Amino acid sequence: MTTPSASDKPVILINVFTVDPARQQELIDLLTRATGDSVRHAAGFVSARLHRSLDGTKVAMYAQWRSAQDYEAMRRDPAPLPYLQQALAIAKFEPGMYQIVQVFFPDSDS
Amino acid sequence: MTTPSASDKPVILINVFTVDPARQQELIDLLTRATGDSVRHAAGFVSARLHRSLDGTKVAMYAQWRSAQDYEAMRRDPAPLPYLQQALAIAKFEPGMYQIVQVFFPDSDS
Repeated sequence: MTTPSASDKPVILINVFTVDPARQQELIDLLTRATGDSVRHAAGFVSARLHRSLDGTKVAMYAQWRSAQDYEAMRRDPAPLPYLQQALAIAKFEPGMYQIVQVFFPDSDS
Repeated sequence: MTTPSASDKPVILINVFTVDPARQQELIDLLTRATGDSVRHAAGFVSARLHRSLDGTKVAMYAQWRSAQDYEAMRRDPAPLPYLQQALAIAKFEPGMYQIVQVFFPDSDS
């Protein structure tokens, strides 16, 4: 969904997984392996944070990439696919590709 | 959904709004006003990033709070409610309260 002119700018991927709370830890382990073993070595990967929801029903990955092109190239790499396919067998996946609009701090208008 | 023992630890709020692309900017303006004028002054607010999806259909707020208690106290404050009610009139809202499991970088196991 990116336009050609947007594909070379930094992007944020916010991917929210919905899961049975009994399998939240299993999903976390799969995403940790996919990211730690493979995704983080891809060209253009900047950083990522993996989150568990306190109610047990969600896991969220917040990842920064140098560009949409780099992210899409990684998605064509077969190495992380087995982990991601296992993740998608136990979780629903709501992906999103974003740019930052604004950053807020307690006492500045940034 | 937080347990008492978890309510005094740092939390991340990842709130994803789904919106008609024609109203994405209007939603961004409402959330910018709610956060800039009011939410960021609440006790325990650490920082927040507002994001627009490249496909126009989503807006995501990623916010760090000192504790779930602080976030819940802010939710009881009436000041940002008019903006949030306008936002919810034009968007669907999927909230989530999280803790960070792990952070990934390109060449470390962090």
